Amino acid sequence: MRAVQVVGYHDKLQLNEVPDPQITGPFDVIVRIGGAGVCRTDLHILEGQWEAKSGVALPYTIGHENAGRVEAIGDEVTNVAVGDKVILHPLITCGLCRACRAGDDVHCENSKFPGIDTDGGYAEFLKTSARSVVRIDDSLEPADVAALADAGLTAYHAAAKVARMTRPGDTCVVIGAGGLGHIGIQVLAAISGVRIVVVDRNPDAVALAVEVGAHVGITAPAGESEANGPVEQVLELTGGHGAEAVLDFVGEGGATAEGVAMLRRAGNYFVVGYGENIDVPTIDIISTEINFIGNLVGSYNDLNELMILAAQGKVKLHTVTYRLDDFQQALDDLDAGRVRGRAILIP
Amino acid sequence: MRAVQVVGYHDKLQLNEVPDPQITGPFDVIVRIGGAGVCRTDLHILEGQWEAKSGVALPYTIGHENAGRVEAIGDEVTNVAVGDKVILHPLITCGLCRACRAGDDVHCENSKFPGIDTDGGYAEFLKTSARSVVRIDDSLEPADVAALADAGLTAYHAAAKVARMTRPGDTCVVIGAGGLGHIGIQVLAAISGVRIVVVDRNPDAVALAVEVGAHVGITAPAGESEANGPVEQVLELTGGHGAEAVLDFVGEGGATAEGVAMLRRAGNYFVVGYGENIDVPTIDIISTEINFIGNLVGSYNDLNELMILAAQGKVKLHTVTYRLDDFQQALDDLDAGRVRGRAILIP
Amino acid sequence: MRAVQVVGYHDKLQLNEVPDPQITGPFDVIVRIGGAGVCRTDLHILEGQWEAKSGVALPYTIGHENAGRVEAIGDEVTNVAVGDKVILHPLITCGLCRACRAGDDVHCENSKFPGIDTDGGYAEFLKTSARSVVRIDDSLEPADVAALADAGLTAYHAAAKVARMTRPGDTCVVIGAGGLGHIGIQVLAAISGVRIVVVDRNPDAVALAVEVGAHVGITAPAGESEANGPVEQVLELTGGHGAEAVLDFVGEGGATAEGVAMLRRAGNYFVVGYGENIDVPTIDIISTEINFIGNLVGSYNDLNELMILAAQGKVKLHTVTYRLDDFQQALDDLDAGRVRGRAILIP
Amino acid sequence: MRAVQVVGYHDKLQLNEVPDPQITGPFDVIVRIGGAGVCRTDLHILEGQWEAKSGVALPYTIGHENAGRVEAIGDEVTNVAVGDKVILHPLITCGLCRACRAGDDVHCENSKFPGIDTDGGYAEFLKTSARSVVRIDDSLEPADVAALADAGLTAYHAAAKVARMTRPGDTCVVIGAGGLGHIGIQVLAAISGVRIVVVDRNPDAVALAVEVGAHVGITAPAGESEANGPVEQVLELTGGHGAEAVLDFVGEGGATAEGVAMLRRAGNYFVVGYGENIDVPTIDIISTEINFIGNLVGSYNDLNELMILAAQGKVKLHTVTYRLDDFQQALDDLDAGRVRGRAILIP
Repeated sequence: MRAVQVVGYHDKLQLNEVPDPQITGPFDVIVRIGGAGVCRTDLHILEGQWEAKSGVALPYTIGHENAGRVEAIGDEVTNVAVGDKVILHPLITCGLCRACRAGDDVHCENSKFPGIDTDGGYAEFLKTSARSVVRIDDSLEPADVAALADAGLTAYHAAAKVARMTRPGDTCVVIGAGGLGHIGIQVLAAISGVRIVVVDRNPDAVALAVEVGAHVGITAPAGESEANGPVEQVLELTGGHGAEAVLDFVGEGGATAEGVAMLRRAGNYFVVGYGENIDVPTIDIISTEINFIGNLVGSYNDLNELMILAAQGKVKLHTVTYRLDDFQQALDDLDAGRVRGRAILIP
Repeated sequence: MRAVQVVGYHDKLQLNEVPDPQITGPFDVIVRIGGAGVCRTDLHILEGQWEAKSGVALPYTIGHENAGRVEAIGDEVTNVAVGDKVILHPLITCGLCRACRAGDDVHCENSKFPGIDTDGGYAEFLKTSARSVVRIDDSLEPADVAALADAGLTAYHAAAKVARMTRPGDTCVVIGAGGLGHIGIQVLAAISGVRIVVVDRNPDAVALAVEVGAHVGITAPAGESEANGPVEQVLELTGGHGAEAVLDFVGEGGATAEGVAMLRRAGNYFVVGYGENIDVPTIDIISTEINFIGNLVGSYNDLNELMILAAQGKVKLHTVTYRLDDFQQALDDLDAGRVRGRAILIP
Repeated sequence: MRAVQVVGYHDKLQLNEVPDPQITGPFDVIVRIGGAGVCRTDLHILEGQWEAKSGVALPYTIGHENAGRVEAIGDEVTNVAVGDKVILHPLITCGLCRACRAGDDVHCENSKFPGIDTDGGYAEFLKTSARSVVRIDDSLEPADVAALADAGLTAYHAAAKVARMTRPGDTCVVIGAGGLGHIGIQVLAAISGVRIVVVDRNPDAVALAVEVGAHVGITAPAGESEANGPVEQVLELTGGHGAEAVLDFVGEGGATAEGVAMLRRAGNYFVVGYGENIDVPTIDIISTEINFIGNLVGSYNDLNELMILAAQGKVKLHTVTYRLDDFQQALDDLDAGRVRGRAILIP
Repeated sequence: MRAVQVVGYHDKLQLNEVPDPQITGPFDVIVRIGGAGVCRTDLHILEGQWEAKSGVALPYTIGHENAGRVEAIGDEVTNVAVGDKVILHPLITCGLCRACRAGDDVHCENSKFPGIDTDGGYAEFLKTSARSVVRIDDSLEPADVAALADAGLTAYHAAAKVARMTRPGDTCVVIGAGGLGHIGIQVLAAISGVRIVVVDRNPDAVALAVEVGAHVGITAPAGESEANGPVEQVLELTGGHGAEAVLDFVGEGGATAEGVAMLRRAGNYFVVGYGENIDVPTIDIISTEINFIGNLVGSYNDLNELMILAAQGKVKLHTVTYRLDDFQQALDDLDAGRVRGRAILIP
């Protein structure tokens, strides 16, 4: 089959002919790829940023946001059948460690990450495990949802935590109205009763966020915080108390200090974006009794739930498709900022 | 190997020579049995009570409370190694269905139950799955803990729920001071701050319950409830309000009506024992806002937690051992009520 | 002031001139009634059904679903100001007992219930406590929301529990598409990701339920259950597994047996409607590990949350208004089944 | 009555004759002080550290850890009676704001803090509210438990959170084996199944911590971290994974960096002690999905629960008593480090 592979760091990807994957174990699943998300992480891989961490042997097939149809299954696979439309959870997990046994499979002690440390989905087929395939509704197309497999799943996971930890009428400030922010806002609007206040520096992104479900949009000034900056606006919106939840998809450029200042007593700060440090005096943490909640990608069941919201039309993603052969164009467009929404490779 | 098998219903068990089990799949585990609990369910199986439900083909090896040492493992087993002491969760679960993926593997849609619907542990070896073996502390002996694998795990599961749903100073009435009751009381005493009130008709059982951790023992009168029956005593102990939790290991002979009468507003009734119906007016359920909580056997992680309490000496079980060859004596003693604690078959 | 009073059981209500209430304690609040719900309970009171239970001395002012504007407040009232629009929680609670201190004020050990055991809201003014008044959004009119104070609050309380105990894609069967059912469905649609399946014998009620948010409507046959009755339809909708939650607003006429048959393993049955008994074998409760959850009226904070959903337009109620002087007409219309939605007395 | 008052900052406390407090409102409670804790905060008050924050008018009576007997009550007090032994929650809360209504009264929007911003308990009597008095068991003496009212309540609140968020066999590292640490360890041992690992620089404190319930004691080296420092020891104890919970009573001198390094993936860091900043890269927070949980003093119900554990003998405190007239000696001894356990003023 054809597969787009990393053949060297600081080098271009290469379209190679490689052997088709084969079923060798009872839980194996081979998926015919219908859509593979092209992600900024793929650019970082080529720059060598993951070389040491992943330790993957070159060449290998890249692509970690994958969806398609089941092509073949091992003898003991009971959760999908040949022909099913599926999306792939980003991790292949063991099902045996304590985390897996608690349903918290993201913290699996023995996981693999296709596209990062083993062969991924820029290819005709991908071999994975029954534990990684989530059947999707017939009304959904793999190419439309593939990009929800990783970044979207992270946004869902964090937003669903916010939904469980808040009550109707609570305020949730969403910092960052980019790709993850839009997913998070749609999820909050669909399954919680919070008032959603979005903060971003880009007025167009704020406008779009309001369109997809945010109740209040705040465009942060590009420069220094001013008398009527985002913090002051959030405090004013909340009677001076601050927000019960801050969902931070930025995590750099001063976002966390600003976000903490927006938080109500006993509020929860959800860390998703990263870059800078959380740097807060312990006296402030205890005197207001606030919490900081880390967020990684969601679990297998989280992905199942996100696909249900997608099938209901409650979570949508704007995508641009490229043929697999045109992978270089997709990467170039992404690198140059020419992709609106997410780029997807299709067969 | 030698294996004690069901060869016909209403017939005696037979010690047969059968082939040793072999590793054939990557997640297979073969355990050399160190202890197999002899349970009243085994008598019921011989009486044919499980014939229709299990649909098992005869002959098959009986025994569903098993512990021992790992003898051999498949290629992908990572949670135990050859030589490890292990206890076996009663179910072999698929790891693929939604319940398994949520950590709620007891509700697996594709489970098997060794000793009931497939070969069990009255034998030298048992073949199971990596998903069913829980490593135990070196200080524990398989024969000492085997009987915790099923009944003990049920008591732990329910008592741990009580612990999570109560606060220090709340009252939990434990109805039934038999085998499960004693495990439940030890668990409550170890991991919760509730006041434990035990109710039983047998004064000796009540006395032993108080010895293992109950704070108050109530011996229920054999006949009709009286002016100062258990309900009245519980109400008096709780300032007329009733108990926050009732943990019912009996579930028959009027226990549930009495138990409900002991419950405080917004209290929780934990159903474990069975026999009669829960039969309560909906007006009473809503006007006092009480809940009824069903309890089945615990999960894999529950069993792991119970084994930790056992290793700490916080949960103990009285056992009587018999050689595997003496299986008939063990069953006869159990049937005749001659076993104090639990009977265990050892190699 | 004018007040409509119970002067005798099995007698008509009377419009009397009574003294205006006065502020006498620091937490007193006097509300000028803007809307008082006319409820079936009011008919039952006149029939003497509450005589023994409430022990109220006659004459007293009836009316337990009240909203209006704050007319006067005691010295220590900090949560409302004169002129605020408010809805009244049905109970006046002590704020001192353990339940009140846990936020579970519905189980207050010292509560009063205006309109039932003390003067209510069929009047120009009502004297209550600061602990019972919930400020509502300026966009809401007291007459529009008054009827949410009791029945609506019960539906919200139960539906919000369902929302917290389910995940997107779970199925919730709502039994009963009457007044409470419609509120419950609107709440579920607003703050959860469950698939809502409504079951009722009245096709018009089912149609309206689907209009306000139910995803699937099932019209139950008037007579005996048939091959394709509601249970079979729910099982078919859920791949044979049953629903994760059943929210039962009926509780009589066989609803509970049918509802339990619709429940999935480990599912939750929410009891709201009442009439018959929950009558289920304990063996069924433990082998499927299902729970029964009682539901009474919601808490003060629940009412606050419901008012937020109302202000957002997510929960609506159809009402018909009558002048206070026309109270008899309102009661007659209710008794004769001539009220569509809820009857409200206005000044 | 006699009362020890702050008459000026950087000045000594003065024993003054002041008017006895009187019941003026329906929820007033006057307590005859049986024990008042002498706390390091009292020294800080005299140094002027609280002057700006509290804004209290001088002179006023100091003392914020108080217990005694009820001397008089207002008309609507139902939770205590004259003569009851009580301990005082440190805050007087409104019972009206959303936090109070949720049982989270520590975040009351209108609270007062006797001994800090209004008259406290270095006196014969203290006037407080019914919402602040917790009845204690007859077996307890006010002087023995007074010091649990603030610091002890904080330790209980945090440890009870740990208990709710962990399972038997999880590891909880307790950083700091001082006064709060000892209370926290006793609480964990009483109501959870965690393995308690205590870390402190003082070998005597570690030894005492092990005596009261810690399972493993680690004496941290005074200087730089070494090859076998506390972090390495915790990792070794946990199979390289780290602890599910870290309960940090220190919060300065590098404790937080060390504590975070001890944490397992998806672990929870409980901040109680303060001084330095939590300063952690967001990339570390999200990639391990850890949480930071702030902890303030406990709620009214928390104090009730702690008093139950005290009555059961599960939480004990070493105290040294001084007569009220000898207040200066108590403060001097505290300042000079001559008090072992807690100093208590008695009548």
